[in-house]
This record gives sequence, structure tokens and C-alpha cells, in this order.
Amino acid sequence: MDPFTQITSHITNAAKKLEFSSDEIKTLLKPQQIHKTNLTVEVNGTRQEFPAYRIQFNNARGPYKGGIRFHPKADESEVSALAAAMSIKCALVDIPFGGAKGGVVVDPKQQDSSTLELISRAYVRAFVNYLGVDNDIPAPDVYTNPQVMGWMLDEYEKIVGRSEPGFITGKPLALGGSKGRDIATALGAVYVLLQYSKSVGCNLQGLKIAVQGFGNAGGTVAKILQEHGCVLVAASDSAGTIINLAGLEASDLLKLKLEGKSLID
Amino acid sequence: MDPFTQITSHITNAAKKLEFSSDEIKTLLKPQQIHKTNLTVEVNGTRQEFPAYRIQFNNARGPYKGGIRFHPKADESEVSALAAAMSIKCALVDIPFGGAKGGVVVDPKQQDSSTLELISRAYVRAFVNYLGVDNDIPAPDVYTNPQVMGWMLDEYEKIVGRSEPGFITGKPLALGGSKGRDIATALGAVYVLLQYSKSVGCNLQGLKIAVQGFGNAGGTVAKILQEHGCVLVAASDSAGTIINLAGLEASDLLKLKLEGKSLID
Amino acid sequence: MDPFTQITSHITNAAKKLEFSSDEIKTLLKPQQIHKTNLTVEVNGTRQEFPAYRIQFNNARGPYKGGIRFHPKADESEVSALAAAMSIKCALVDIPFGGAKGGVVVDPKQQDSSTLELISRAYVRAFVNYLGVDNDIPAPDVYTNPQVMGWMLDEYEKIVGRSEPGFITGKPLALGGSKGRDIATALGAVYVLLQYSKSVGCNLQGLKIAVQGFGNAGGTVAKILQEHGCVLVAASDSAGTIINLAGLEASDLLKLKLEGKSLID
Amino acid sequence: MDPFTQITSHITNAAKKLEFSSDEIKTLLKPQQIHKTNLTVEVNGTRQEFPAYRIQFNNARGPYKGGIRFHPKADESEVSALAAAMSIKCALVDIPFGGAKGGVVVDPKQQDSSTLELISRAYVRAFVNYLGVDNDIPAPDVYTNPQVMGWMLDEYEKIVGRSEPGFITGKPLALGGSKGRDIATALGAVYVLLQYSKSVGCNLQGLKIAVQGFGNAGGTVAKILQEHGCVLVAASDSAGTIINLAGLEASDLLKLKLEGKSLID
Amino acid sequence: MDPFTQITSHITNAAKKLEFSSDEIKTLLKPQQIHKTNLTVEVNGTRQEFPAYRIQFNNARGPYKGGIRFHPKADESEVSALAAAMSIKCALVDIPFGGAKGGVVVDPKQQDSSTLELISRAYVRAFVNYLGVDNDIPAPDVYTNPQVMGWMLDEYEKIVGRSEPGFITGKPLALGGSKGRDIATALGAVYVLLQYSKSVGCNLQGLKIAVQGFGNAGGTVAKILQEHGCVLVAASDSAGTIINLAGLEASDLLKLKLEGKSLID
Amino acid sequence: MDPFTQITSHITNAAKKLEFSSDEIKTLLKPQQIHKTNLTVEVNGTRQEFPAYRIQFNNARGPYKGGIRFHPKADESEVSALAAAMSIKCALVDIPFGGAKGGVVVDPKQQDSSTLELISRAYVRAFVNYLGVDNDIPAPDVYTNPQVMGWMLDEYEKIVGRSEPGFITGKPLALGGSKGRDIATALGAVYVLLQYSKSVGCNLQGLKIAVQGFGNAGGTVAKILQEHGCVLVAASDSAGTIINLAGLEASDLLKLKLEGKSLID
Repeated sequence: MDPFTQITSHITNAAKKLEFSSDEIKTLLKPQQIHKTNLTVEVNGTRQEFPAYRIQFNNARGPYKGGIRFHPKADESEVSALAAAMSIKCALVDIPFGGAKGGVVVDPKQQDSSTLELISRAYVRAFVNYLGVDNDIPAPDVYTNPQVMGWMLDEYEKIVGRSEPGFITGKPLALGGSKGRDIATALGAVYVLLQYSKSVGCNLQGLKIAVQGFGNAGGTVAKILQEHGCVLVAASDSAGTIINLAGLEASDLLKLKLEGKSLID
Repeated sequence: MDPFTQITSHITNAAKKLEFSSDEIKTLLKPQQIHKTNLTVEVNGTRQEFPAYRIQFNNARGPYKGGIRFHPKADESEVSALAAAMSIKCALVDIPFGGAKGGVVVDPKQQDSSTLELISRAYVRAFVNYLGVDNDIPAPDVYTNPQVMGWMLDEYEKIVGRSEPGFITGKPLALGGSKGRDIATALGAVYVLLQYSKSVGCNLQGLKIAVQGFGNAGGTVAKILQEHGCVLVAASDSAGTIINLAGLEASDLLKLKLEGKSLID
Repeated sequence: MDPFTQITSHITNAAKKLEFSSDEIKTLLKPQQIHKTNLTVEVNGTRQEFPAYRIQFNNARGPYKGGIRFHPKADESEVSALAAAMSIKCALVDIPFGGAKGGVVVDPKQQDSSTLELISRAYVRAFVNYLGVDNDIPAPDVYTNPQVMGWMLDEYEKIVGRSEPGFITGKPLALGGSKGRDIATALGAVYVLLQYSKSVGCNLQGLKIAVQGFGNAGGTVAKILQEHGCVLVAASDSAGTIINLAGLEASDLLKLKLEGKSLID
Repeated sequence: MDPFTQITSHITNAAKKLEFSSDEIKTLLKPQQIHKTNLTVEVNGTRQEFPAYRIQFNNARGPYKGGIRFHPKADESEVSALAAAMSIKCALVDIPFGGAKGGVVVDPKQQDSSTLELISRAYVRAFVNYLGVDNDIPAPDVYTNPQVMGWMLDEYEKIVGRSEPGFITGKPLALGGSKGRDIATALGAVYVLLQYSKSVGCNLQGLKIAVQGFGNAGGTVAKILQEHGCVLVAASDSAGTIINLAGLEASDLLKLKLEGKSLID
Repeated sequence: MDPFTQITSHITNAAKKLEFSSDEIKTLLKPQQIHKTNLTVEVNGTRQEFPAYRIQFNNARGPYKGGIRFHPKADESEVSALAAAMSIKCALVDIPFGGAKGGVVVDPKQQDSSTLELISRAYVRAFVNYLGVDNDIPAPDVYTNPQVMGWMLDEYEKIVGRSEPGFITGKPLALGGSKGRDIATALGAVYVLLQYSKSVGCNLQGLKIAVQGFGNAGGTVAKILQEHGCVLVAASDSAGTIINLAGLEASDLLKLKLEGKSLID
Repeated sequence: MDPFTQITSHITNAAKKLEFSSDEIKTLLKPQQIHKTNLTVEVNGTRQEFPAYRIQFNNARGPYKGGIRFHPKADESEVSALAAAMSIKCALVDIPFGGAKGGVVVDPKQQDSSTLELISRAYVRAFVNYLGVDNDIPAPDVYTNPQVMGWMLDEYEKIVGRSEPGFITGKPLALGGSKGRDIATALGAVYVLLQYSKSVGCNLQGLKIAVQGFGNAGGTVAKILQEHGCVLVAASDSAGTIINLAGLEASDLLKLKLEGKSLID
């Protein structure tokens, strides 16, 4: 089952339980606008094309909001599904935004930085008419980062001819990014765990934890939980797993990862 | 083979014969922008949805140009193919326009006039950002007519807040439409025939002709060729065929058709 | 004496007491801009016209601000007078807004909801050039409510093509309306009474009150004053009056009214 | 009977003869938009106010078009009537424009040139939102001339920040005005007379003519008719009448008038 | 050495100490945009010209920000130097603005108020394309004051047709100016002194102070320091110096200055 | 004497002979707007800066018009002088344009094509606010050609998001350039010669001509004059001179030059 069929099936089930009318359900099952293009970029004299999407699911609650992913397997179904999820996530936490998502079919690991900059700028040029602080506000997603957001913001400001930092979120702090965004994903996971442990009467002090995946999200979760008294007994990354029942030091491991090494080095 | 695969295969063959580079061919095989939406229209208190497209193939030679069809079988492949054809047709006659096409998935024969007006206006509202006299100029196509163009023009002028008759072609004369557009298709066929008969040394005077299909195009061709001395000996429509070797009077038959009758009545 | 002559006579008297110059007084006696139109709406196939006004009195202190009333007796003099009053009210409480007012000559009790929606949308289309978050910000007034503001906001956002909740105040909470606006009028009256009772040394505890008019304003005043210890001994609406020296329960009466009944039912 | 009642009564009569529907007649009896303001101008340190109007009658056939008059007796009824007449005149000669009219309540003979310039510029500033080459195109009318149009054009171009000579007609030749406009009114009268004389079989050669009013219109008519063989036997202006059955020389009299003298001087 | 050579030499020295790359240094040594014009103003029928500048040094950190001075010796080098200084000052206190500066070559002491108003309005008209709340935000500087800012704001709002108080800072309180701005310069000096005295262990109580220059800055510094316990023993203005070892009363002296008198009167 | 001093001295002399007022002369001696910037372009990883100018001399007669030169010695004085000359040239031939000029300080012979493209695009980005079909219309000048105009047009259309071929003149035919522009300079010279020879009674048939400089201008002049019967006896380019009293064939020599060879090869 493709991703969009999957999410619309979930939505339909939920909407029926909530006794939505068939007109209301219909609204929740199709994106309002789908935009597709091919970004054309000249790399070392040869022209390369990268299919690109911006799919705007629903803006009934405010401007569209959603990240842009750079991924070789991004396609219309997946980006539509993620745009639908964004609409529901924004509604759930009751912020005045709708949902959208963008994607470029590219493997960023096989492109150098200057090609990625050209792709980022071409994306903004292609979709500039449908984006903007009161229309649709992008953000980072899989394989895009603050640097990509910075290129996109710069391109947008050049086109519209004014300073407009609200165009995009997840940009570098120096360009007006939000403090705390780097650990926001990890903090979210910790908050959920704190609520859960309280509700089940579990004490974090001395609790043994194992963290699978030790990137920015997993590693930071480990570090924060350690500060709450948990004991990190195991940690893994794509290269392997380390175990120490007496406790590992999360900040040491994070430093290791930042140097580009693996946990098992 | 779907329509878009078909046309890109033709284009590829032609481009190879013309010895285009692979970069040049690549440009001719993909639309620059695909826009899809669902037009939502409230008819007698119930909400109906009509998928709608605007596909912009290539604007290297000037603003996009291409009609909008209302057809139950319109889809992304067909509309893309027609947009590609528009790009090539505009280039062929060397007018400074690129090619685009639009479509709404609707059977206009099963909708009353007020629903068609709502759909026409919704189409303009959905795609207003990508249309405009210097960007993309629509026109009538299958099952859309001057009346539909008039609704679309009115909706556009209300949104942009100014008089802008150049927004759309094929509109009614009273709103700034072009004189002669009603017989333009027929005239085009006649011009081709005139050139052909000259090149093969055939004399039109007394030439016997038979016309298959007697709508605005076929019937008008018959009428004009009669003025050039041809003798109309046979004419057919979807109901049947009439034959008179001594000659039929094209204008009488056209009058019959305008009254909604068949040739065989 | 018509409403505008009345208010300008008050203004002249006040301005003379404050020793304004004749140039200064002149500025206070005429609206800066008067816009009049006829809203044309098609109801069940017949065209109806509703005269409509937007009168912008003075914007020296900031964007114009003022409600739109739907009333069969709205006219240029009344709307001008109300626009003048808005200018003075905004200045009095020192908020950075000028004053304006709008009106449509229609009896909303004799129109169904879909006609009112058409009128609301036509009003925005007619005056869109002079409205906007930095120019003139409408609000509800007599016989217009959050639903009307919602239609107007939706029409405005469709025309300008962006999310702009600041366009209008008094809109539904779900569209960005302000919490507390529903009881704001009543609270204002209560605050005045609280100040007054303090200044004359009157104790609210046990104070007997009678409330004339038991709609959203009057009924809510009664309910809040009851919470301050007052005893509601009489209440009236357009159908009649009820009296109980031992005290009536305001929230019961409000519930009755919400069900569309009269106090004397 | 005020001017607007008068013209709408004429329109109603004509429309009934043409068997227009009551909906169609309704459309012809009310201006689409009325804009009123007070132009405030500082002359020698004291503030003066001049009521001003722009009344847009109908734009179904294209952008509004109509002159601006400076006249002490201009009022809403008169300007509305003239706007209605413009709509009908433009339709009659089948040019793609609707009808509008503007007016300022001022006696230009009692104002010096610099005050008139301030009034002209203030007029454009007040109504700039509703004017423009695709919306509403002003022109000279009673007591306004190419110089006034030049000030208005200059003010408009300063506000919009671009060269836009199409904003206004009747401007000086050096700013893009049309050649021949100075004698256009006279030529129009002559053309009518030529058609009429042809239709009644009257020979212009030797025909005796008397011209009442010898300004730009009347004097030029006399001069052109003389070139067609007519004999000018009498001419009058506000100061008196001169008669010469043997013939007066129109160009001499025009020269006299241009020097500011009267015909009887 | 001209002012711009001077400041770029300082910048180069500092940048070298901070080990900036030569590319980075290059960016700090040239304004991004220089705009020059001649403001033409008609005073009593004769045309006067005033050279005017807006020099935008760097906007990497946000919209340009910087004052406009009216000074007979303003020139390209000085205004460029001040624009460079503004860029560095904004960066130093870490507010999201770049640096710019404007100047008009005029001696405001030799012009009456109405000429200064004309110059202020002409300045905005000349540079309106490069200014704006998201592009470049002016402020007062030498010989310009809240009144000048008010004229400039009014001109800007007339041109753009909307309320936009953020266009300029240093405007009068009644137009949206910031409270406290009048004593901000003096307070800044006092804050520096407070920090300094604390760091050197000096007690302000009873400290004898002498103030050279008793305008808005110097006089206010004296008044505030007196409130901190300092004793004002000497004060001077361009006319002379007064001394009283027992202490002078700063507020009395300020009142004297406000009446347009000298300290020695 | 620098170029601008030189031309203003010529203008002053001419204006005095024409008895212009001192106010009128003043207007002719200073550009209305001077814009300067540094174009920053990244070539092979290192940042290069190229000072760039757009100087708008006078737009009283219509939008500014004037070329952009790429030259190592372009400076403010020279570009100002050329902008002044453009104003006078446009007025002389009575076309509704004012005069401007642009320049970039770069030696195009020392830059490869991709750097020149980056410079061309950066120029448009820097000055986009002051250019446009109703404001200021660039053209080629020394060392800029149709290719450069094409890059500039493409950059402009990308920024404004619409097709706008009128933005620039001298662009390639395929992008909407004017037919005949390539031989326009030569034709102008021939027209002058034709008029001159007629006025002095000289017969072109058999007239011997020598052409100094055999680029697009000189070579084409030779070719056209040959068609008028002249005999080309000598031709020179920067490499040398060839002489043949019996006559040289201009079209052969032009072909030689087009192949990049010298006349003496």
C-alpha cells in the first residue's frame, strides 16, 4: 500500500469514529494543491534534472506549513502523505497553520555542496509564487538542514527584494533561527517520556535506558535523560552497539559522533 | 500507450532526426510545471469535487498559451500531451508564446449552466497565481466555449481588480473577443486545401466534395469551398449521410444544424 | 435633526469648549472619504440590490476602524455619524486607530443565510480597495455577527491570495478571533458600574438590580453582577417583564433566551 | 427636477422602448461606485476645503472613462448624471470603455494657478486607488484644461513611481497628448452638419451661417465651415454680437478672442 | 584623511586582529549601494537644489538602519563612513539590522520651516524605492528631529497608501514614536558612567561633576546624575560657563535652555 | 577635463545660445539619480568585485533609456556624461524617452563567458528596483552584445516572475529583438551620407570610398555603399590597411572578419 493510501485510510477510520459527515471526510482525503516541476541545474557544464514537489494539503486553519526533504525516493504519494500528516499535527497542537510538504528527488550524499546550493535555490525559484509568510512556510526535513534553509532564505529575499526571515523555519541562528530548535526533537521525546513515567508511577532516578540510534535526536535524548538520573547502559548506531551496565557517558559519545566517528571506534 | 508517452516518443524521433543534443531533447520531454487541484463547488447544498489541471509545458518562447477542456476523461497524461503539442504548434507558426493546457474532469452535458459557471470561476480562483497576460493565457478547448471564457474573464477581473481582456482568448465579441474566431478553424482547413490544390494543379471550380461531420468546422468548410466553386455532393453527421450529385446547398444545411436538427431530418 | 447633524453639533460644542482653532474644528466635521455602492446579488434567479456604505471619517491616529451594520434604515447620515463617533472613541481610549463605519441597507431578518453570505461577500468585493490591515479594519455591528465576519474574511483572503486574519475583528475563535469578545460589551458596562459604585460609596453586596433588555449584553451584565453579590429582582425583554423581589437566577433566564424563548414563557 | 432624476427618466423611457427587462433597466439607473471627499489645501497659511467627487457609473464595457470638472455648482446629482451620460456615449460609439465623471466644487476663476495646481494634485491623491489605465481614465471637462491634466499626470506618476501617460487623456502634446484633440469638439459638430446637409440635399457652398458662442468650439466650427464654402454672417460671445451679411473672417475673430478680447472690441 | 578612508582603515586593522579572511575584509570596506540625487524644491517661486544621499553599507544582518542628517558639509565620504559605523554598531549590540546613513547638503538654520518640510518630503519621494520597513529604516541624525521624521512618515504613507509607522524611528510620540527616546542618548552616557564608576570603585554620592554642552544630551545627563547624588559644580554652553562649587540645579538650567536662553543669561 | 565637465560645458553653451533660463539650465547639468554598487561574483571559489553604475540623467520626456557598457575605464564621470548625451539624443529625434547609462568596471576580454554571465545577472539583481519597461530601459553599449542582453532579460524575468521582453533592447531576435538592429548603426551613417551627397550634388555612382575600421559598423557601411554604386578602394582594421584602386569586395572582407581574421590576412 503506497504511503498516501495508507494515511487516507487512517484518516477515514478516525473521521468515521468522530462521526464526521461525508462532505467533511472528503475534504480530509485530497491535497488542495499539487505542484510538480523539474529543477534544472548545470553542474560542470552538464545539465541535470531533479523532480521536485510542493504539495499543499489544507490551509483552513492558517498558512500551509511543512518541511522539504531531499531524498532519492521522494515521490508524489509520499510527499502527499506527509503533507496530510502535517495538517493533522498542526491542528492537534492547535497552532494556526495548515499542512504542506515538499520534496526533491536527489541523493544529497552523492552531490557536493555547491550542487546542493544550486538545487536549493532552484527549488525556491520554481515555487516562489505559492510560498510566503502568509501562504506557505517551509522547514527542514530528511537530509535538509539549517544550511539548506539559509540558501533558500537568501534566494527568496533576493527575489522579493526585502528582508523576510519568517519565510522559512529551521534557518541558522545568525539569520534569525529559533534558539533551542537543535534539541527540540529530543526534548519532545523526553517530555513524552516524563509524562508517561509520571502516569505509570515509574521513577527515572536510576532507571536503565538503552538508546537505538545516536544522532542528534537519540544522542541528545540520552544526554538529557542522564541529567534526569537515568543510567545509559547501551547505545547503538549504524556501525554497531556498545553496552556497559555500569553506565555510559552520553556526552562523551555525542562528542565522538560529532567528530564523525562511530560509537564502536 | 498513454497520450503523453505517445507524444514524447514522436518528439524524441523528430529531435533525433534534427540532431538535437541530449540536453536539448531532455528539455522537450517534461512539462516545466504541473498544477493539480480539486475544484469544490456547492450544488443545491451538496458539495461536489472536480479534479482540475493546469500543465505548463514550456515558456522559452513567451508566455504559456493553451486551452482548457471540460471532459470526464481528462487526466494528467492527456493534458500534458496537449500542453506539449501547444508548445510545438506555437513554435511552428512562430508566434511568441509557449505551450500549456488545462482540464477539468467533468461531463458538461450532465451539469446545468449555473454549475458550469461555478466550476469556471473556481478554476480561475485555483490557478490565478500562475495565469496572466504575461504568464499563461487560456483559451477554449473541447466542451468549453465563449460563455465559459466570459465567466473566467469576469472572475479574473474581479480578483485582480482591473479590466484585463487579454487574460483569455476565445471570449465573446462583446467582451473584446477577436472577430473571425468562429470560422477560424474552418478557414485554416480551407487555406491548407487551397495551397494543396494549387501545388497539384487541381482546379477547385466544379470540384466535387464530400464533408464528413457538419458542425461549426465541417459545415463552414463546405460553405466556404462552395464559394470557391466546389460542388458539395455529400454531407454526414452523427445521425446519417445525405447525397445529391447535383449539389447540396451548404448554407441551408448549416441553418438546419443550428436549429438543432440532423442533416437527415 | 439627522444623526450626522446631531453629532457634528456635539463635536462643535465640545471643540469650542476645548478652544480648538477653526481649522481644527473643520477637520472634525467631515468624513475624509465616503464610498457608496449597490451590492447586486442573485437570489433564486432574480437580481436584488442593496445600497452599501463605507464611510471613513478620520485616520490621523492610525488605520480606520469600525463595524458594518446590516439594517433596513442605514443611510449616509447615520453611517457618517457612527464613523465620527468611532474616531472619537478610539482617540478617547488612546488606541492607534481612526474611525470608520459601514452599512448595508437590508433587513437581515427577512433574508436567509445564503443570501446574507452573498451580501457579505459582495460587500468585501465592492470595498476591497479601501480596506486592509494597514488601512481600514471592519468589525461586527448591529445585526452582523461572527458568522458574517467569517464570510467577509474568507472572501478577502480569496481575493488577496493570502492568509490575513487581521483583516477583520469579531471573527469566530476558530478563525483567529479574540477570546472574551462575546462578553466584552457586558463587561464594559460592569466595569463602569463598579467604578461608579466605588466613587459613590455604594456596596454591591445585596444591591437590588433590574435589567431592561436581556440579550447578550443585558443578560450577561445581570449574570456578572449577580456574581458580585447583586440581587436581580426584575428583567424584561421585548415580550414582557418578570419580577421577583426574592431574586431571579440570571443564568436560568439566559438559558431560556438562548433557546429562543421569551422571559415570560 | 435634479440632473440625475432627469437622465434616469430619459434612460428609463429609452430602455422601455427597447424592451429591456426590469433587471437590465435597474442596472442602468444607479452608479456602481460613488466616492466623495474633501480636498484640503493650504493657501497662504490658511486651510481651504473643496468637496470632490469621482462617480463610476458602469464598467461592463471596459475601464471607466470621463472628465473632471472644476465648478462651484458641481454636486453629487450632476456628476452622477454626467457619469451616466458618459457610459451611454462610450457604448454608442462602441469604444471599449465604461462611464464615469469627476468634479471639484471650486470656482477656478477665483483661484490663482498655484492653488489650482494644489487642488489638481490633491484630487489625484484622494482618488488614486480607483483610477488607473485599466480602471478609470480621467479627462478634462468644464474649466479644466491640458495644464490641469499635466499636473494630475505628474502627481500620479510620482505616486506610482513609473511613467504612465495613459493615465489621463487631454494632457499637453509634450506629455503624450493626442494631436488634433484641440479641434476635436468642433470637428465633431462639423461632421454632424456635413452628414445632415448631405441627407437633406443642402449645398454648403455659399450657405450663410451664424455662430453663437465663439470660444474654442464655436470659433473653430466657424473657421472650418468657412473652408467648406460657408459664409459667416454673424458671430456672438458673452459680450455681444457682430453681423456682416457680406461675410466675417473667422480666423481674424479667433485671433481677437485668443488675445482675450471680445468680438465687439 | 577623509572620513571614509579613516573608518575603513580602522575596520581593516580590527579585522586583521580578528584574523578575518581577505574576502571577509573586502566585504567590510565598501557600501553595498550608493544613491545620490538633487532634491529640487521651489521656494517663493525660485528653484533650489540640495544634493542628497542614501548610502546602504551592509544588510547581511537585517534591513538597513541609519539616520538622515541635514548639514551643509554632508558629502559622500562622510555619509559612507557613518553608514559603515551604523553597520558595526548594530552588529555590536546584536540587533537584527544592517547599517545605512542619509544626508542632505543644506544648512537648516538658514531655511524656514516650510522649506525644511519640502526638503523632507522630497527626500522620501527620491528614495522611496530603497526604503521600507523590511529594507531600510531611517531615523533622525544631526539637525533633523521628530518634526522632520513626522513629515517624512506622512509623505511615505501618502505614497504607499497605507498606515506604516514602522517606516521611520524617532518620530513624535503622537505618531507612534517610542517613549523614552528623548532622553535615550543621555541615559546611554549615564549607564556607561555607572558601569565605569562601579568597576573603579568610585562612589557617585557627592561626586562633583562638570558638564560641557548643555543641550538635550548634556543637560539631561546632568539632571540624571544629580538624581544619583552627584553635585553639578560647572556647566557650559556655546555662550559661556557658569560655576558654583556648592552645586547648580540642573533642572533650573534645562528650563532656561528650553526658553531659548543661554546658561549665562 | 573629465567627460562630464566637458559635456556640461557644451550643454551650457548651447542652452545659453537658446536663451534658456538659469533654472532650465540647472536642470540640464545634473543627473536626477546616481546608483553605484559593487557586483560580487564568485569565480572558481574566489570572490571578485566589479564596481557598477546606473546613472539616470533625466526622465521628463519618458522612461530613462540607455546602454550598459562593460569597460575597465568606466567611471562615474564618463557614465554621467553618456547619460546626459542619451537624454539629448532621445529629445533630438523626438522619441518619448529620457536618458540614462550604465557601466561595469570590467575588462570583458579577460573574463570567460560564464563570468560575464554572472556579472550580467548580478547587474540586473543590483539595479532591478530602478529598471523596468515604464522606468528605465537598458540596451547594449561598448563590449556588451545581444548575448549579454539575453542573460539580463532572463534574470529580470526570473525576478519579476513574468515574460517582459520590453525590459531591454538589443536582445537576440529569438527573444524578441528587433529585426534590422544589427545593421542599424551602419544604416544611420549611410542615411546621413545619402542626405549630404544629395545636398552637395555629389553622385554616389562610381564614388571612391575608404573605410577606416571594418567591424560591424564600418564593414556594413562599406557593403551598403557598394550597393549604392560606390567603389571601395581602401579598408583598414587594427592590424593594417589594404588598398585596391580597382575596388575591393566588401562582403568578402566582412566574411573574413567574421571568421576572426584580420583584413591583411
